[in-house]
Amino acid sequence: MRIDGLSINLATVRAQWSLREAVAACVRHGIGGIDPWRDQLAATGLDDARRIIADSGLRVTGLCRGGLFPAADPAGRAAAIDENRRAIDEAAAIAADCLILVAGGLPAGSRDIAGARLMVEEGIAAILPQARATGVKLAIEPLHPMYAADRCCVNTLAHALDICDRLRGDLGVVVDVYHVWWDPDLTRQIARAGRRILAHHVNDWLRSTTDLLFDRGMMGDGVIPLRQIRKLVEVAGYGGPQEVEIFSHAWSRRSGDDVLATCIERFRTVC
Amino acid sequence: MRIDGLSINLATVRAQWSLREAVAACVRHGIGGIDPWRDQLAATGLDDARRIIADSGLRVTGLCRGGLFPAADPAGRAAAIDENRRAIDEAAAIAADCLILVAGGLPAGSRDIAGARLMVEEGIAAILPQARATGVKLAIEPLHPMYAADRCCVNTLAHALDICDRLRGDLGVVVDVYHVWWDPDLTRQIARAGRRILAHHVNDWLRSTTDLLFDRGMMGDGVIPLRQIRKLVEVAGYGGPQEVEIFSHAWSRRSGDDVLATCIERFRTVC
Repeated sequence: MRIDGLSINLATVRAQWSLREAVAACVRHGIGGIDPWRDQLAATGLDDARRIIADSGLRVTGLCRGGLFPAADPAGRAAAIDENRRAIDEAAAIAADCLILVAGGLPAGSRDIAGARLMVEEGIAAILPQARATGVKLAIEPLHPMYAADRCCVNTLAHALDICDRLRGDLGVVVDVYHVWWDPDLTRQIARAGRRILAHHVNDWLRSTTDLLFDRGMMGDGVIPLRQIRKLVEVAGYGGPQEVEIFSHAWSRRSGDDVLATCIERFRTVC
Repeated sequence: MRIDGLSINLATVRAQWSLREAVAACVRHGIGGIDPWRDQLAATGLDDARRIIADSGLRVTGLCRGGLFPAADPAGRAAAIDENRRAIDEAAAIAADCLILVAGGLPAGSRDIAGARLMVEEGIAAILPQARATGVKLAIEPLHPMYAADRCCVNTLAHALDICDRLRGDLGVVVDVYHVWWDPDLTRQIARAGRRILAHHVNDWLRSTTDLLFDRGMMGDGVIPLRQIRKLVEVAGYGGPQEVEIFSHAWSRRSGDDVLATCIERFRTVC
């Protein structure tokens, strides 16, 4: 029986499997959906990747990722916008529920986070017409404030929703528990997001986190109240799967089958 | 000539010097103030520490630290409150401008951050009378969200100020640039804080941060717009020194004199 409520972000098993292998494994484990990364599509070839995914019957809960808009000069910003247009086309090709946008950090040498945030908003505005034309929804993912400098200058749901409010269009947000669990305004912002929640990512925050990037926990191993946040997200109107996204040196060393089996078990017991 | 606008949090030179040595070095370098830690007072003995500090003529811009209120049971919470009362007495003994409160994280095994936040507020309420009686101001320091689980569940200026609004009393906040620089609401919250800003800590966020605790940068080496934040803080009504607080394996390996000379140079050029 397929577990429709569970999707696997393929970064979670990137170390173990190619796209083709990961898709086959998700089908074998009865998982309902996947969220691949653009470099995984490229490594397989977009046409082959599209066919592998379509044949699998898996729901595509997102494509990771567009965004990364800020750049030191206009040429860099234009190149980022072009790259996002290609990402939109790829998301359309694999019938992804949304293209996930990670804003990008400060341009090299910059201390102007307000300026970077403006570049993000201008970048999203520039790609909205193409998103509309291709039917691809854009999902802004606020990342944890510890990534503000180097990866993503949109760090709260409130900020992501402010951008949605200003730009309108087929635009929404990702609620990834890792990035937002600490926010004292979380309950209110999830309610505010409502049906603009386009994806819900799960994992856990380990109490003693040792690495800023590769020490995410498996659901249940950390401090995040997963069921509580899930309920908020569902009450707000999101009815899609929970997507497991774990960047972790520790889980990268386990077999892919072990990782997926654990995801399923934790999905059933703690999510 | 003494640099009255500059204070050194003694954690910055903890690896190099005892309290006595650090105080002497600050005087030698012409620094205007210090902020010692309670364990440094204890290691020297409170009476000796008090005398060393008083004789130095240095301003005491704070005592680190009270707080750490959440605990798994009522006995643990009561013990934390007692400990904070002792901290208030020590702050009074050394005539510190304020006692810095770091809220504390989740009790062991807990996933209830809202509950922990309530314990913090109850804890502060419980020690306010003693603060009033001794003339010690309490300064809530919001810590970066990456410390929400294990160190401090008050992670934004807005939240710290909400607590101040509810409890009133001789209560204010610390603006440490490391913890708040990323906040899209920073300008508004600093203005809201106004004269409740009791301390202003400076350091820097390194673009490629490699450690959650011990990789703070020296002012100018990272991405924080220090002058801009300083201006906001001063316009809000804070007229005290900037206090350098750097936890860093890299700076711990430099000589104390080198660290202080660099603090002074950076204070003059980038702060």
